[in-house]
Amino acid sequence: MAESIEKDIVYIGNKPQMSYVLAVITQFNEGKASEVVLKARGRAISRTVDVAEIVKNKFMPNVKIDDIRTSTEAITREDGTASNVSAIEITLRK
Amino acid sequence: MAESIEKDIVYIGNKPQMSYVLAVITQFNEGKASEVVLKARGRAISRTVDVAEIVKNKFMPNVKIDDIRTSTEAITREDGTASNVSAIEITLRK
Repeated sequence: MAESIEKDIVYIGNKPQMSYVLAVITQFNEGKASEVVLKARGRAISRTVDVAEIVKNKFMPNVKIDDIRTSTEAITREDGTASNVSAIEITLRK
Repeated sequence: MAESIEKDIVYIGNKPQMSYVLAVITQFNEGKASEVVLKARGRAISRTVDVAEIVKNKFMPNVKIDDIRTSTEAITREDGTASNVSAIEITLRK
C-alpha cells in the first residue's frame, strides 16, 4: 500500500525538464497510477510548473491538473543556519 | 470598474522578493482589495510562491491562498523565434 503511494510521486530537481516529463509519462503508462504528484522546493518550482504544462499540453491531453498546493519548509544547512524554503505539490490526474 | 480590477494584480518579476511582499500588503491595506492576484512567467514562478508564502505566514495570517492556476503562454522573441513559457496565477484572499 505504502509502496504504491510512493511510486506516484515525482520529485523535481535540477535535471533537464524532459527527464521529469518522461518520468511522469512512465508513471501514468505503467497502468496503476491515475494520479501523479510532482513535488519541488525553491528554484525547482518553476521547472515543476513547466513539467506539468508540458505533460498536459504536449503528451497526455487526457491529463488534468487536479490540485496545486504550496507550503513553507524549514531547512537547516550544514553550517547550522536555518532558513525557510517554499515548496509546491502539483497533482496530475488522468 | 476596470481600474479596480487592475489594481489587485501584482506582476512578479526580477526585483527582490520583499518589494513584491510590500506591494501585496499595500494592496490589501489600501482597504478596497479583498483579493490580490500574483502573476508571473518562467523563472519568476518560484519567487511568486515565495511571495505568497511570506505574505501569508509572516505578515498577514488572515490571508489565505484561494486559488492557484498554471498555464502556457506563447512568446515571440525579438529575433522572431517562438517559444512557450509557463505562467502562474496565485489568488490571495483576506
